[in-house]
Amino acid sequence: MTALDDRSISPSVTTGPIRGSHKAHVDGPDGMRVPVRRIVLSTGDHHDVYDTSGPYTDEHAQIDVRAGLAPLRAPWIAAREPVGGAATQLAWARAGVVTPEMRFAAVREGVAAELVRAEVAAGRAVVPANRRHPEAEPMVIGRAFLVKVNANIGNSAVTSSIEEEVDKMVWATRWGADTVMDLSTGRNIHETREWILRNSPVPIGTVPIYQALEKVKGDPAKLSWEVYRDTVVEQCEQGVDYMTVHAGVLARHVPLTAGRVTGIVSRGGAIMAAWCQAHGRESFLYTHFEELCAVLRTYDVTFSLGDGLRPGSIADANDAAQLAELRTLGELAAVARAHDVQVMIEGPGHVPLHKIAENVRLEEEWCADAPFYTLGPLATDVAPGYDHITSAIGAAAIAARGTAMLCYVTPKEHLGLPNRDDVKTGVITYKIAAHAADLAKGHPHAQARDDALSAARFEFRWRDQFHLALDPDTALAYHDETLPAEPAKTARFCSMCGPGFCSMRITHDIRKRP
Amino acid sequence: MTALDDRSISPSVTTGPIRGSHKAHVDGPDGMRVPVRRIVLSTGDHHDVYDTSGPYTDEHAQIDVRAGLAPLRAPWIAAREPVGGAATQLAWARAGVVTPEMRFAAVREGVAAELVRAEVAAGRAVVPANRRHPEAEPMVIGRAFLVKVNANIGNSAVTSSIEEEVDKMVWATRWGADTVMDLSTGRNIHETREWILRNSPVPIGTVPIYQALEKVKGDPAKLSWEVYRDTVVEQCEQGVDYMTVHAGVLARHVPLTAGRVTGIVSRGGAIMAAWCQAHGRESFLYTHFEELCAVLRTYDVTFSLGDGLRPGSIADANDAAQLAELRTLGELAAVARAHDVQVMIEGPGHVPLHKIAENVRLEEEWCADAPFYTLGPLATDVAPGYDHITSAIGAAAIAARGTAMLCYVTPKEHLGLPNRDDVKTGVITYKIAAHAADLAKGHPHAQARDDALSAARFEFRWRDQFHLALDPDTALAYHDETLPAEPAKTARFCSMCGPGFCSMRITHDIRKRP
Repeated sequence: MTALDDRSISPSVTTGPIRGSHKAHVDGPDGMRVPVRRIVLSTGDHHDVYDTSGPYTDEHAQIDVRAGLAPLRAPWIAAREPVGGAATQLAWARAGVVTPEMRFAAVREGVAAELVRAEVAAGRAVVPANRRHPEAEPMVIGRAFLVKVNANIGNSAVTSSIEEEVDKMVWATRWGADTVMDLSTGRNIHETREWILRNSPVPIGTVPIYQALEKVKGDPAKLSWEVYRDTVVEQCEQGVDYMTVHAGVLARHVPLTAGRVTGIVSRGGAIMAAWCQAHGRESFLYTHFEELCAVLRTYDVTFSLGDGLRPGSIADANDAAQLAELRTLGELAAVARAHDVQVMIEGPGHVPLHKIAENVRLEEEWCADAPFYTLGPLATDVAPGYDHITSAIGAAAIAARGTAMLCYVTPKEHLGLPNRDDVKTGVITYKIAAHAADLAKGHPHAQARDDALSAARFEFRWRDQFHLALDPDTALAYHDETLPAEPAKTARFCSMCGPGFCSMRITHDIRKRP
Repeated sequence: MTALDDRSISPSVTTGPIRGSHKAHVDGPDGMRVPVRRIVLSTGDHHDVYDTSGPYTDEHAQIDVRAGLAPLRAPWIAAREPVGGAATQLAWARAGVVTPEMRFAAVREGVAAELVRAEVAAGRAVVPANRRHPEAEPMVIGRAFLVKVNANIGNSAVTSSIEEEVDKMVWATRWGADTVMDLSTGRNIHETREWILRNSPVPIGTVPIYQALEKVKGDPAKLSWEVYRDTVVEQCEQGVDYMTVHAGVLARHVPLTAGRVTGIVSRGGAIMAAWCQAHGRESFLYTHFEELCAVLRTYDVTFSLGDGLRPGSIADANDAAQLAELRTLGELAAVARAHDVQVMIEGPGHVPLHKIAENVRLEEEWCADAPFYTLGPLATDVAPGYDHITSAIGAAAIAARGTAMLCYVTPKEHLGLPNRDDVKTGVITYKIAAHAADLAKGHPHAQARDDALSAARFEFRWRDQFHLALDPDTALAYHDETLPAEPAKTARFCSMCGPGFCSMRITHDIRKRP
C-alpha cells in the first residue's frame, strides 16, 4: 500500500480555470504540448501567460488526487542515455545535448532551447527534475530567464494536516508558484511528501535534515551521516527535485555568530551548528559532501546550498558569519559541478536596501554565477504581520540585480504557520516582485502584460483589466465593493474619482476633438 | 454658524493609545512639549517613536470633534514679524531665523534645529504650516530628514460622507500618516475640509482645482483664473497647508501625450489639458503663477507642484510629456522661491525599477533640489488589488535615492474609493517603504527600532515584539490565530516551526554551553 491508498486521508483541492482564462497548450518541438494560461479579451484577442498550475486549471482534465498526475516526462526519462556515467541535465548540457526538459522550459520562456542548454552547461541555470518525479512540468531557473517564485508549505508539530498541505500546494501553483518546498517537520513527513509529489505539477524542494532530525527524536547531537544519507536516498527515491543542504555551516563559522542580534535563524543552520558543537567535529554534511553529490547525481536532484548562517535581522546583514559561509558554498558548488550535479545558492534573509547589491556581487563572484535563490530579503525588521511586503521590497531589488528565484514570505512570517489565504497573498506578492524585476531586467516579453492591462484600463474594458491581473478575483471584488451593478463593468469611471473626475475619460474627450 | 456647528454631522473617531504604548512628551526648547509614542518594554526600558497621531492617542486628552483641536501654534503665530514683507518659513530661514516650527520639527527628527533652518533656506526642505492652521503639529519634509508618508482621503461623487472622511483622517494619522490630502470632489467639499482641518494634527493638502471645477458644475472649459483664485483664497483662509497646483501642464505639452498607452491620468492634469484645448490658450495656472505665489505667500501655504502629465503605465514612464512638464516645474519652483514661497515637486506614478533613478536625478537637477513627493511609483501595472505593494516596491526604491515624501497607494487604487481598512493598509505599507529607505539612507536613528524589535524576537519577548511593530494589533492577531493561550506569549517558539525546530531556541542552547 502506498501513502495515496490511505483512505483516512482525503485531500480536496481547488480545480477549474482562473477567472477569465482557460488552459491552452502551444505546440513545442517533438510533439510537445506546452501549457499556457490563455486570457481571452473582449476585443477578440487573447493574451497567453506562463502557467504553473498544471492540469488543475484545465476544465477537461480528470483530477484524482489518489492516482496522482500523469507522468508527463516518463517517455523522455525512459528513452535517454547517461553521458560519462551521469544522467543529469548538467551532464547532457555540457555534452551539447538539448534535453526535452530544456526544450519544454524554453517554450515556456519564449527563448531558444539552445540558450537553456548553454546556461545550464555554464552553471548559470538549473532545470530541477528528479527522474523519479515524472509528473512535474519542466522549468528553468537562472538569471537569463523569468524570475521564479518558490512557495514554502508544510506542517509543523503544532498545526496542520496532510489534506491542508496538499491543498496548499495546488493552491500555491494555481496562483503562480514555480516551485514548492515541503518543509514539514511534524508527523507523517514521508506520507505528506508522497501526496505532494504525486500531485505536483512543479518541482518540489525539501530540507532533508528536518526529517533526519525527526528520526533521531529531535536531538541534533544524535544525528549522523548515515541517518542523513538514508533520509536523502529516501527522498530522492520519492522524487524530490531539489534539496536544501546546509553544508556551509562549518564548525569554525559558528563562533562568528556570537555577537549577533538574532544568532542563527535558519533551522537547518542551527541544527548543524548544534551538532558541530556537541561533537567538536566538522559538519558531516561538509566532510561527506562528495558522497552526497554521488547520491544526488544518481537521481539528477539539484543542490540548493542553504544559507544556514543567513542574517535574521538588519543588524546582522552582510556580517562575517554570513560571508564566510557564502565563500564555503562557492567551494561546494564547484565540487557539485565536478560531479555533474546542478546547484543553486540560497541567500538572505534580512538585508537593508543599500546592502543588497553586495550580496549579488559576492554570490556571483564566489559561486561562479550559480543561480541565486533568496528568501526576500526583508528590507526592515519592524513590520511583523506585513513581512510579505517588507520582503517583496527587498526581493524586487535583489531580483532586478540578477537573483534567479525568490522564496516567498507570507504575512505570518515570524508569527505562525501560514494558512491558505496567507499562501495566496505570499504568492501574489512575490509574483509582483518577480515581475517588477523582469521589467527592470528588460526581459523581452515581460512588458506585454503590463501594456495589455494598461490598454484595457485606458479603454474602460473593466473585465479585461480584471482578467489580465495577477489576481482577477480580488480585482473584481474590490471594484464591485462600491459599484457592483453590471453597467459599471463598461462605465467610463469607477468610484475612486466618480464620473466627473475621471482623468482617462477626460483624455478621451480631448483626443476626440479636432 | 460654522461647519462644525452642524448638528446633522456627528463624526466618531478612534481614540486611545496604540497597543503597548502611550503618549508622552519630550521637552523641547522654549518650554515646548513635543509628542512621542512611548513603547514600554517588558525589560523596563522604553522605546520612543515619532508620533503623528495627535491628542487622539493621549488617554488624558479630552477630544471634542465639534470644538476641534487646541491651536498649538497660535502664540507663535501671534508673536512674530514678517521679514522683507514675507511671513513664511522660507523667508525666516533665509533671514537666519529659526522658527518655533523648525525647533519643534527638529526635536521630532532628533536633529539640530539649525539643520532644519538651513535645509529650508536652501529650498531642500519645507515646513508646511499655514498660519490659519494652528492646530497642526509642525513637521519637516526634505531628503535630509525621515521619509514622510501622505495619506489621501476624500469623498467622490459616488460614495462616502463627512463623518467617514474625518474618521479616515484620524485613523490615517493614528497609523503614521505625516500629512493628509483631502481630495474630496463630491458634495460638501468646503464643509468636509473644515471638519478635517479643525481636527487634524498633521498638515493638510488639497488640490484646489477639484473644488473650482465643482463651482463651474464640472465643465473644465468654464474654469477661469478668477474662479480658481477665489477657491485658493477660500482654502488658504480655512488653513490648508499645501496645495497641488498643476501649473506645469502647458498647452504645448498636451500633444506629447497623444501616443501614450494611458494618456493623462492625473485628474488635475486632464482638467487643465481640457481647458487649454477648449480655449486654445496657455494654462491660466501658468500665466497667473506669480499672482498665485502672492496669495500663497500671505498664508505661508506650500506649493506642491503637481505632475499632471505623470505616466499612468509602465509604457509611458519617463516619456517626453512627463519630462517636459518636470522642466517647467523647475522653472516654476524658482519663481515660487523668488516670492519666498515654499515648494515641493510631485512625481510619478508608474515607473519600472530601472527608470526610477533618472526621475530623482532629473528632479534634483531641474528643480534645484526641491523636496520630491512621489505617488509610489508602481513598479508594474499587472496587479490591481495589490497596488499598495506594487507601489511600495517603487516607493522604497525612489525614497532610498532621496525622495522626501511618499504619497500612499491603497489596495483599491484603480478600482474604487478606499475604505477605512484600505487606509490603514496603505499607511502601514508606506511606513514600511519609508522606513526601508531611512535605513538605506543611513538615517542615524532609524535602525534603533529594528534592533529593539529583533532583540525582542530573539529573546522570545513576544509582547515586546508585537508592541514594537508598526501594527501591534495585526502582529498579535496573527500570532494568536494558532497559539492564543497566554503561556505562548513567553514560549520559546511559535507555530511556524514548533518547539523542536526553533532556530533561535537552538541558538540559545548553543550559546549556553561552554
